[in-house]
Amino acid sequence: MTEGASGDGREPDHIERLRVRFSDTDAGGIAHHSNFFRWLEEARIGFLREIGLSYREIEKSGVHFPVTACTAEFLRTIRSEDKIEIDLWVARSNRVRMNVSYRVRLGSAVAAVATTGHAFVSDAGEPIRLMRDSALWQALTEFNPG
Amino acid sequence: MTEGASGDGREPDHIERLRVRFSDTDAGGIAHHSNFFRWLEEARIGFLREIGLSYREIEKSGVHFPVTACTAEFLRTIRSEDKIEIDLWVARSNRVRMNVSYRVRLGSAVAAVATTGHAFVSDAGEPIRLMRDSALWQALTEFNPG
Amino acid sequence: MTEGASGDGREPDHIERLRVRFSDTDAGGIAHHSNFFRWLEEARIGFLREIGLSYREIEKSGVHFPVTACTAEFLRTIRSEDKIEIDLWVARSNRVRMNVSYRVRLGSAVAAVATTGHAFVSDAGEPIRLMRDSALWQALTEFNPG
Amino acid sequence: MTEGASGDGREPDHIERLRVRFSDTDAGGIAHHSNFFRWLEEARIGFLREIGLSYREIEKSGVHFPVTACTAEFLRTIRSEDKIEIDLWVARSNRVRMNVSYRVRLGSAVAAVATTGHAFVSDAGEPIRLMRDSALWQALTEFNPG
Repeated sequence: MTEGASGDGREPDHIERLRVRFSDTDAGGIAHHSNFFRWLEEARIGFLREIGLSYREIEKSGVHFPVTACTAEFLRTIRSEDKIEIDLWVARSNRVRMNVSYRVRLGSAVAAVATTGHAFVSDAGEPIRLMRDSALWQALTEFNPG
Repeated sequence: MTEGASGDGREPDHIERLRVRFSDTDAGGIAHHSNFFRWLEEARIGFLREIGLSYREIEKSGVHFPVTACTAEFLRTIRSEDKIEIDLWVARSNRVRMNVSYRVRLGSAVAAVATTGHAFVSDAGEPIRLMRDSALWQALTEFNPG
Repeated sequence: MTEGASGDGREPDHIERLRVRFSDTDAGGIAHHSNFFRWLEEARIGFLREIGLSYREIEKSGVHFPVTACTAEFLRTIRSEDKIEIDLWVARSNRVRMNVSYRVRLGSAVAAVATTGHAFVSDAGEPIRLMRDSALWQALTEFNPG
Repeated sequence: MTEGASGDGREPDHIERLRVRFSDTDAGGIAHHSNFFRWLEEARIGFLREIGLSYREIEKSGVHFPVTACTAEFLRTIRSEDKIEIDLWVARSNRVRMNVSYRVRLGSAVAAVATTGHAFVSDAGEPIRLMRDSALWQALTEFNPG
């Protein structure tokens, strides 16, 4: 399930740094597993920002890419105030779907590996195909030519 | 600050019943204080539903009432799976602003008292005045003629 | 990835009914994908409650079962106030690990299928093996003898 | 209600910088009001960190300071990716209770003013009095000698 989560040895396409919030934790004293998916989202937005794209602008232009599938393996617990790093790789994508893989690190220890799949949809939620000259598609092909 | 939170002895205009989720708790083992405001929101939506109004429909019609102010006193801790009841009272309101007060109960024990203030705004976020014949304004005057 | 998510045609071991909260939604207007995992958690807790076990009591007894892996496919969008039903099946489990699969429905439409994997751990987070006569293990074998 | 929220013209005792997460927003497209309280909490933890105290260590030592009351006025909407600054002032406190006031800024614009009240309690949730020589009490008196 997490094949490719390591990016096949490639350098990450983006590294997002986050400080875990107290409100990310639950009564078990550790970060709630659902919040990992919120952090991955910040990593995606941070990746776009790094390459000069704005998530907000893309959404305003009528292109959305909701999460249609996801997987995660949680290997270590994360606590409030922990400073984590999220390695992000653009994985196999086309003009209809995008896949992203992640590695969440606490220092050198891997705390989680994960993947998300996304479909490109319109404001009305209908499937769309990215324009070949769209900035988003240009970026995706640059980062994952395969 | 919580004057009127008891509704001045009036019967509640609505009682909302909720089961606290595990994800409502934090590392302290108890419900996070921020989540009380999420429950109060459910109580407002439930109140509208009870009187035949749909929050979603009101929003779609271009009328929004974001929280512009709030107060709360937390008197007892609430835990995962607790079944709480939220007494809601429509408080002093006009066609520009709405005030609501609440009492959160765990059985007969009062766990919190709170108030929220709301402004009516358009899709663009501009202040608006409710139409005199709008269903929302009719409901507010019925419940708080003062 | 979602093999078995349908419970192989078996009747669900538990059905959890939930009303989606406004605060479960994000700026896209639909329920945030991370919140599905919070609802699945409520389904697990509800399942335990139905068979006479208390999640809180199990935790107090020093047995925890954090999510160690999860998968989900999101098929339909869910909105605030939607009343959803979560079908839950206990899947292949042993005294060291537990697997659960889910189907989230909005009426008869399937909105998501998902799985979670759990490890049994002590208060200190060390792997443990459930006692053969523990109520939790009795329940798991009853529901998934395979 | 927000008297003192400006710290009476004093320089803030701490300034916390935060980037708003996409998951902090709701279907209205703006940050959910409940999340302001999560950000204020990060500001408190950041303040402690700045003066050499660890929230986690204080909690481990058996001293907790749950929010017992709060107020907020929301003046401007905040959106995903906004970089906000939270000015924090320690307000009137004693060895039994602590008060904190805040100003949330988006650049030079004030987006919210808020206050939180806290009681010092033991692991068992019983009211306690801070030891005169405790690091926390030393810090509180240094920052608000009045």
